[in-house]
Amino acid sequence: MGNIDAGNPHQVVVVGGGFAGLQCIKALNRSGVKITLIDQCNHHLFQPLLYQAATTILAPSQIAWPLRRLFRHRKEVTTILATVVGVDTQDKHVQLGEGTKLQYDTLVLATGARHSYFGNPDWEQFAPGLKTLEDATTIRQSILTAFEMAEKADDPEQQRACLTFAVIGAGPTGVELAGIIAELAHRVLPAEFRRIDTRSARILLIEAGDKVLSAFPDKLSDYAADALAKLGVEVMLGKPVTDCREGGIEIDGQAIACQSVIWAAGVQASAAATWVNAESDRAGRALVLPDLTVPGHADVFVVGDTAEVKDSKGNPVPGIAPAAKQMGNYVGKAIRQRLSGTTTIKAFEYRHAGSLATLGRRAAIADFGFFKLKGPIAWWTWGFAHIWFLIGNRSRIAVTWSWLWSYFTGQNTARIITNPNAYERAAAKNPTAS
Amino acid sequence: MGNIDAGNPHQVVVVGGGFAGLQCIKALNRSGVKITLIDQCNHHLFQPLLYQAATTILAPSQIAWPLRRLFRHRKEVTTILATVVGVDTQDKHVQLGEGTKLQYDTLVLATGARHSYFGNPDWEQFAPGLKTLEDATTIRQSILTAFEMAEKADDPEQQRACLTFAVIGAGPTGVELAGIIAELAHRVLPAEFRRIDTRSARILLIEAGDKVLSAFPDKLSDYAADALAKLGVEVMLGKPVTDCREGGIEIDGQAIACQSVIWAAGVQASAAATWVNAESDRAGRALVLPDLTVPGHADVFVVGDTAEVKDSKGNPVPGIAPAAKQMGNYVGKAIRQRLSGTTTIKAFEYRHAGSLATLGRRAAIADFGFFKLKGPIAWWTWGFAHIWFLIGNRSRIAVTWSWLWSYFTGQNTARIITNPNAYERAAAKNPTAS
Repeated sequence: MGNIDAGNPHQVVVVGGGFAGLQCIKALNRSGVKITLIDQCNHHLFQPLLYQAATTILAPSQIAWPLRRLFRHRKEVTTILATVVGVDTQDKHVQLGEGTKLQYDTLVLATGARHSYFGNPDWEQFAPGLKTLEDATTIRQSILTAFEMAEKADDPEQQRACLTFAVIGAGPTGVELAGIIAELAHRVLPAEFRRIDTRSARILLIEAGDKVLSAFPDKLSDYAADALAKLGVEVMLGKPVTDCREGGIEIDGQAIACQSVIWAAGVQASAAATWVNAESDRAGRALVLPDLTVPGHADVFVVGDTAEVKDSKGNPVPGIAPAAKQMGNYVGKAIRQRLSGTTTIKAFEYRHAGSLATLGRRAAIADFGFFKLKGPIAWWTWGFAHIWFLIGNRSRIAVTWSWLWSYFTGQNTARIITNPNAYERAAAKNPTAS
Repeated sequence: MGNIDAGNPHQVVVVGGGFAGLQCIKALNRSGVKITLIDQCNHHLFQPLLYQAATTILAPSQIAWPLRRLFRHRKEVTTILATVVGVDTQDKHVQLGEGTKLQYDTLVLATGARHSYFGNPDWEQFAPGLKTLEDATTIRQSILTAFEMAEKADDPEQQRACLTFAVIGAGPTGVELAGIIAELAHRVLPAEFRRIDTRSARILLIEAGDKVLSAFPDKLSDYAADALAKLGVEVMLGKPVTDCREGGIEIDGQAIACQSVIWAAGVQASAAATWVNAESDRAGRALVLPDLTVPGHADVFVVGDTAEVKDSKGNPVPGIAPAAKQMGNYVGKAIRQRLSGTTTIKAFEYRHAGSLATLGRRAAIADFGFFKLKGPIAWWTWGFAHIWFLIGNRSRIAVTWSWLWSYFTGQNTARIITNPNAYERAAAKNPTAS
């Protein structure tokens, strides 16, 4: 790699404005490089709170910030709203969807992951996953519409199906979604409906494995399962999903009629590994060297959920925001070191700060290794941690306000169905709903 | 009309959860009637602030509230999310889109208005209007996407078209939209783009008539036109639009290439008049009797933007929120009076409280008849008036907070493009953008 040249500065292209990409750009502040950030969306999304946008607690704009605004004072950073379709590692350029090429000296691929349906892509239409703001809006519409249809249904079976919500996968996202849906049905909505008792809704949390939140120690997992049961969630363990279809799902061969299904079971990395012909694992994550570069391409880094990285004990680094940020930070610093002539750069080392998961709006579990928390105190810890990491003063205050409001009044106010067609479509699919 | 019967209460069906419908239900509190509220959306929309949702200042959930929540303590009110397709005035029932019938004793039609393209419905796809949250999201995407495309465009002509914004119609909505778009281009966005100067954007406010805000006295209109010019808006008066098409518009026979067009020129009432075979005016508004009932149907009221009503001087009652609320209130009270046996009910009388319109985020004009205001003091008056009328403490505080933030920092934060496809579609339409 060349040194910095005032007339011809080193070009870093960062693909993806998630936690890893942003942290990399942050670490490159005042390094003299020119940076181009490419993303398909115009915003950075605070994914750890996405489930709250999907469940009516927060509004989309409270957890997303325009990328341009974040870097408005960094004149060397150019943001481009575009889709990357490939990389030419010989000519060192990125290929954009519109036919444009973008030259790079160093390339950082931080394109994240989508959900995976284990070889059943047709399940997606019936069981949407949760990775983007669009997904969150879709899920929110689907949940709210199900209650509306139940209120109008004359057929008890149809009503039952409308009031059955299935969340597939009991990792943090699944647990968090199921907890909030249960609270919606049991605490927020009962006073608002006249023909149905929303408290009779079934919220199923379906997991193929034998425990919820498998990344946590057994004691906390058991506590979480109990807390979910108290919220009104039916936890079904050891139940692999065998089908998702119009009107319902099948678990372990048994059919369950339900209107709303949410997929929180698996992830699939973006196509970045294939762009650079890197070897990848089963989930499509690029196998990278200890310095997070692709074997054979010292000028291409892969970070975040798109990379398969091991910690010092040989365990996989989890796909969580702090891990992505650490990788981004490492790569930013590595680029600086290289440009200043350092030839031996220390390998990336992941430090696990802790694991957190919320159970409804009052309890949570936290595992910091040396100490563990559960219940309300864990919830407050979780809340402070997330407020702390929210970008921008305004968002911090706005989110705090929404949470306190929701905490003390028991009301969620981001409950707008913005796409009337979603409702019409759902109604059309169920001609018995009247 | 029958009296109240405990075993068989009087059934009021209200179609439309806008200002008129809600106020009618409010006025019927503790009257002993059963009420069914039907709306296509699950929320009441605070339309006077819709232009702010369309221009990135407020988030959709800040100006919309779930209808169910508003009436959760009124057990006699049932809310149904459904589309009305007709009314049978003989059998006294409302026909829902799904084939269901709903009997009424008294019917209140408060279904509002949409925009009208003066016989050119095909213009809508190129020049969206602003009546729903969906419209607001569409317009927001279109404005933000235009700046993104300009940043990437290599062809200067294409760039110019992307940076030309046309607002058609210089009534309050058009003026408010143009003012905020100008502020976006001149104050909010300049620091964020690298290849374009957003201050070079042209914001055209196109009006067929000879003044802006024609409902205001000439002095205030002139002040408004000056204030808009200072914000960077090109006001074009006496210019009827003769075409809206892919890539631009034509005014008075002259073609203007522009990427973003917003329609704020005309409204067309909903189909309610045709449901009840009422005579209607050119804009489709039902001609009602002085007690707001439809001639020949004493049990059918039409209120709000769907009714053509005159004030005591014979002038048409304007299509604004206070007028709709007054009509709703009048009808609620009239129903009560009838049920208590009163046979002669005073005619509806409109009291005009005043007219307000904002010019960007610092100035406004206000006409209260006996005194008039302009500039910042009018803006603050406008702000207080709208905060005062926002439903729900939380919304009041949240909106105040967003405004103060935007006022003192000059930043808008509800700037998220939620539909990535919108961008892809726009880019596909303009193959020269690269």
